[in-house]
Amino acid sequence: MATQGQVITCKAAVAWEPNKPLVIEDVQVAPPQAGEVRIRILFTALCHTDAYTWSGKDPEGLFPCILGHEAAGIVESVGEGVTEVQPGDHVIPCYQAECRECKFCKSGKTNLCGKVRSATGVGVMLSDRKSRFSINGKPIYHFMGTSTFSQYTVVHDVSVAKIDPKAPLEKVCLLGCGVPTGLGAVWNTAKVESGSIVAIFGLGTVGLAVAEGAKTAGASRIIGIDIDSKKFDTAKKFGVTEFVNPKDHEKPIQQVIVDLTDGGVDYSFECIGNVSVMRAALECCHKGWGTSVIVGVAASGQEISTRPFQLVTGRVWKGTAFGGFKSRSQVPWLVEKYLKKEIKVDEYITHNLTLGEINEAFHLMHEGGCLRCVLKVHE
Amino acid sequence: MATQGQVITCKAAVAWEPNKPLVIEDVQVAPPQAGEVRIRILFTALCHTDAYTWSGKDPEGLFPCILGHEAAGIVESVGEGVTEVQPGDHVIPCYQAECRECKFCKSGKTNLCGKVRSATGVGVMLSDRKSRFSINGKPIYHFMGTSTFSQYTVVHDVSVAKIDPKAPLEKVCLLGCGVPTGLGAVWNTAKVESGSIVAIFGLGTVGLAVAEGAKTAGASRIIGIDIDSKKFDTAKKFGVTEFVNPKDHEKPIQQVIVDLTDGGVDYSFECIGNVSVMRAALECCHKGWGTSVIVGVAASGQEISTRPFQLVTGRVWKGTAFGGFKSRSQVPWLVEKYLKKEIKVDEYITHNLTLGEINEAFHLMHEGGCLRCVLKVHE
Repeated sequence: MATQGQVITCKAAVAWEPNKPLVIEDVQVAPPQAGEVRIRILFTALCHTDAYTWSGKDPEGLFPCILGHEAAGIVESVGEGVTEVQPGDHVIPCYQAECRECKFCKSGKTNLCGKVRSATGVGVMLSDRKSRFSINGKPIYHFMGTSTFSQYTVVHDVSVAKIDPKAPLEKVCLLGCGVPTGLGAVWNTAKVESGSIVAIFGLGTVGLAVAEGAKTAGASRIIGIDIDSKKFDTAKKFGVTEFVNPKDHEKPIQQVIVDLTDGGVDYSFECIGNVSVMRAALECCHKGWGTSVIVGVAASGQEISTRPFQLVTGRVWKGTAFGGFKSRSQVPWLVEKYLKKEIKVDEYITHNLTLGEINEAFHLMHEGGCLRCVLKVHE
Repeated sequence: MATQGQVITCKAAVAWEPNKPLVIEDVQVAPPQAGEVRIRILFTALCHTDAYTWSGKDPEGLFPCILGHEAAGIVESVGEGVTEVQPGDHVIPCYQAECRECKFCKSGKTNLCGKVRSATGVGVMLSDRKSRFSINGKPIYHFMGTSTFSQYTVVHDVSVAKIDPKAPLEKVCLLGCGVPTGLGAVWNTAKVESGSIVAIFGLGTVGLAVAEGAKTAGASRIIGIDIDSKKFDTAKKFGVTEFVNPKDHEKPIQQVIVDLTDGGVDYSFECIGNVSVMRAALECCHKGWGTSVIVGVAASGQEISTRPFQLVTGRVWKGTAFGGFKSRSQVPWLVEKYLKKEIKVDEYITHNLTLGEINEAFHLMHEGGCLRCVLKVHE
């Protein structure tokens, strides 16, 4: 390709400061170094983690940066030693890497690869601990190792999932974060069995993906809990069988759910990021075996609490990141499942805008009717 | 037997009031009703739960009562419909019942049988919600459905484990609580695998039983943590390979353990009942897979807390009661393992006294050198 080895100047949405509108800028994207991949991003969605860092509430947030971590694109060029993808491959950048070599990858017990985390956590690339993004020489930080709010991005090769080129990138970009997180929380982390009673706190994209995962796992009852009753109609389509609005009850929501289920649910999922709700999700679980999975990301510094008696009497408290999926290995598999119509993706997309309209997209996220807004990155 | 169907007057240690010395009294023990078993208690040990209720700190403690829940004896008589034991059988009374019929027993997921809990929780028998103990007509409450600080006690038939009559009752009485709790926390709740790194907080009887369980499970490192360094010599005999005294370190103990283990332990066990230590036990677990089991019983009203990030990054928080063992089914199996010398029991017995010396025995419990004190109940 003509651009290979060259700096590319392209459009990107830059977050210059917390809580200030993103600015579409001409950004210089350096060529990929050894072990890196430069990707032409075609479509990116927005996720609440982008909004959280953008808001300034994330103490680890670095500015200026290019946010975005749920996207799909095509490999433009690769650095030295990159063998698993080549220019032209269709890919999904993955904020959770999978190196297959570190202690974590080799354990067989977790998807939390540790190889590039020390760099991606501070907005740089591993090899030289520098950014590949700049504007007139001023470096712009990476975000989550993905930075997909840009027409071109550079990521580590261990963070790239190569997918079937038949998959529509404007849809499968969602398989970079929210949908796998929900499905995997059910399939990998909780391992919900057929016949189980499930409670889902929060019916956004992740909660709905939990519902879909629970339905395919054969759950007998899927109770959706949300303070916005308008969400129930949509939630039914994803498998939710009953709806509870905590605002309709004077009793604590955990007691409402326990009463409704003759002692509590078999599995609960917190998909909001609210520590009080995390407690309720644990405490609505059935004594003896109920398992609660924290899926939502709480604000920094907040803590969960409960009486230890809740655990001593058999409840289990756990959490999940990217649904426990090993990214490079399993994102392609999820794409195949989508192509075989075994999992929903299109149904989560409620809005389509362009990269230039990204600030409007952030506003939409905070409205009840928006699940996922997909941005077309190249006009 | 001559006593069958009759009220038996015998000696028992009565807790008249919280935190006042127990008094050896002549107590009337009514004959067992339908579904009940009267047991001649031969040996009983003391456990910290007895001391906790006796102290008055347990808001559910009822007085006057007869404490005690770790004992062995011989069936004196049985009530109507009792088929699984008969007079003369050697038995261990079990505070955790196993009815094999309730939702809990049938689940296959828990040992927390619910059949008699509504009665045992409030110091009475299920059939008529009355006590079988009295002194000159004044009822004395049962405790934990066992009340073994008495020469005779009445328990529900679902709370009696029939054991091999060859087993020495003065030893296997310990299989009524502490030793199974520790072994089962490892084998049933955590399911520690060979090669695992284990941390044990608190090296009393339960903590040492955890060490023994971890050793038989093939743990590669068993780190004992206690503020009394004198306990290490004994702990070595039970399998502890390394000892850490938090008083020797300025850093939080979780950080000390993480540093010592290249990222944390695979399994940790809190065997004290201290909510701060429960947090440390969770947070010293390895990211991605570390599992912490709460074994100790915290004082009423206390709460555990942590950052949800601890769970989202793969740690699991759970708890155990009676080590997850199904009492009637598995206590006899533990007795067999003892007879085959596959598990220790004798080694936990540091003191032997008589029922008449029970107040001295309570004092001993709070001394570092005491693991279990076994009381001979009949002179």
